Amino acid sequence: MDLPVPTSTAEATPPARGEDALTALTTLVQDDLEACNRLIVERMQSPVVLIPRLAAHIVAAGGKRLRPLLTLAAARMAGYRGDRHVALAACVEFIHTATLLHDDVVDESALRRGQASANALFGNKPSVLVGDFLFARAFQIMVADGSLEVLRILSEASATIAEGEVLQLVIQNDTSSTEAQYLEVIEGKTAALFAAATEVGAVVAGRPTAEQAALRAYGHNLGVAFQLVDDALDYSAEQERLGKTVGDDFREGKITLPVLLAFARGDDAEREFWRRTVEDREQSEADLGTAIALMQKHRAFADTVARARDYGAAALHALSAFPDSAEKLALADIVEFCISRAR
Amino acid sequence: MDLPVPTSTAEATPPARGEDALTALTTLVQDDLEACNRLIVERMQSPVVLIPRLAAHIVAAGGKRLRPLLTLAAARMAGYRGDRHVALAACVEFIHTATLLHDDVVDESALRRGQASANALFGNKPSVLVGDFLFARAFQIMVADGSLEVLRILSEASATIAEGEVLQLVIQNDTSSTEAQYLEVIEGKTAALFAAATEVGAVVAGRPTAEQAALRAYGHNLGVAFQLVDDALDYSAEQERLGKTVGDDFREGKITLPVLLAFARGDDAEREFWRRTVEDREQSEADLGTAIALMQKHRAFADTVARARDYGAAALHALSAFPDSAEKLALADIVEFCISRAR
Repeated sequence: MDLPVPTSTAEATPPARGEDALTALTTLVQDDLEACNRLIVERMQSPVVLIPRLAAHIVAAGGKRLRPLLTLAAARMAGYRGDRHVALAACVEFIHTATLLHDDVVDESALRRGQASANALFGNKPSVLVGDFLFARAFQIMVADGSLEVLRILSEASATIAEGEVLQLVIQNDTSSTEAQYLEVIEGKTAALFAAATEVGAVVAGRPTAEQAALRAYGHNLGVAFQLVDDALDYSAEQERLGKTVGDDFREGKITLPVLLAFARGDDAEREFWRRTVEDREQSEADLGTAIALMQKHRAFADTVARARDYGAAALHALSAFPDSAEKLALADIVEFCISRAR
Repeated sequence: MDLPVPTSTAEATPPARGEDALTALTTLVQDDLEACNRLIVERMQSPVVLIPRLAAHIVAAGGKRLRPLLTLAAARMAGYRGDRHVALAACVEFIHTATLLHDDVVDESALRRGQASANALFGNKPSVLVGDFLFARAFQIMVADGSLEVLRILSEASATIAEGEVLQLVIQNDTSSTEAQYLEVIEGKTAALFAAATEVGAVVAGRPTAEQAALRAYGHNLGVAFQLVDDALDYSAEQERLGKTVGDDFREGKITLPVLLAFARGDDAEREFWRRTVEDREQSEADLGTAIALMQKHRAFADTVARARDYGAAALHALSAFPDSAEKLALADIVEFCISRAR
């Protein structure tokens, strides 16, 4: 996909681009992240050995830990100097992992991060149940932390994630779905946890409501941008480098912005193509190529990423509530990281 | 199945037997239960209409509300006069419903309470996700209630339920499983929520630790008794009156106490039968009848129910920590209700 060169986020130092931004953020909170990883491994244990075995497959399988990194950096940016944020970052990752396990069952995915998915390897049944376990365990960790405010934020996020996922099922295979419905889906399934992950950083630091709201806005907009780019990437060869298959969304008939834009901008024959392939799921080998060509013709990828840039700008704006710091710079660069994955 | 006539639970008034005990308990806390049912319907709403539609199918489909009834009666017996127990009873039912939705997906069940199961009617995908939603919603309600102690009890119960369910999968189709493993399964998948349901009654009433532990012990032992009888009922014609199919456990190769007893007491030829049918799941039409005959021959049903009676006695004993009251009498009679379902 052809994207403009990312513009600077207007810091004094040139922003770290792409993977470098993730590396920079990881390095900045390295000790916290290592403590978080230790806690994750410790708290996914159970006398029922299949649980840690299955959990290890997905938890330890080289995810980038983006959401817990956000919690850790947000707490530090908000001036927090204790270690409660480590446990809360682990909760965020447990909830994320639980949703991944359930998603892969729901999507019947065979691959996750370039490896066999847990459901492909262990079966759907333990994947559903270990997801439930990790979800419950996240709440146990929050209870031990003792903040009702954190519990409120993450239980609400969990309900919103499920609502987004169900709505995604409802509009699946329906080309008459609206952009508003699509946005509701990704705000639920992705942005809700990003927003909660960063908001708890302000909560644990005991910052006032305005800063809490600012960090929530940062996470929310970053999450929407992240998912928009993810949905564009699904049609990009870049996808294969990330260990995913190109065209999974297309084959499932998932309604994402690239599809909605190409459908809206297409002529009658093109709309017939989308109805046959996405709605009726009658697809031949050549159809994915045709879909990608139609999306390119109608600038569907470029406009999806442009939309992501708008949300990215809103995320950056939310950070302006905080004084300059290494964490703020790293969180700003992560916006570009999320968007420039699309190259 | 042939069972001795239930013995009296030694109250001055003769105990209500069977269904009567459930009716009596329901009548005793009727206002609370109606408030709880209203809250359940109110809090399962979502702008994503498939969620309340699917939830209504299972929540409103005539369950006996045994677990929330236990919370309501336990709180009243412990002297509680407010209305927080209504919300907590709704949480207990939401968690129970979430596990039912996921169980039916895991067991590939087509029937639940004599009707098409949610997964059969709506598909596995929304069943998994609506389960997640109800689980998250339960935690939102607990957070609004504001007791970290209640959150601790119900998050721990939720993790334990998942552990029990996973262990059940692990020992499934394995005739070398032990009684200890089987007990661990039912203590997890069933007794943990019964124990939590009654314990929160004492917590909301602000009772001392000893009474909290007594109500927990009551619920735990009642839950084990309930599941033992359930596992015997799965092989009984009585099952059909309850809207379930006879022999589901057998067809799935579930390891329950009747199977373990018949296997342990069987000769080589019988053990070969159990290995073929339960372990290898090679079953013909006649095999269920043979299984039931072998269980009867070895008194597997009678001894399973006798075991349930022992747990029932422990549940009754736990109630002795409380002064006599209408609620205490009703909770005592519920023990007999849970056991005498097996007739």
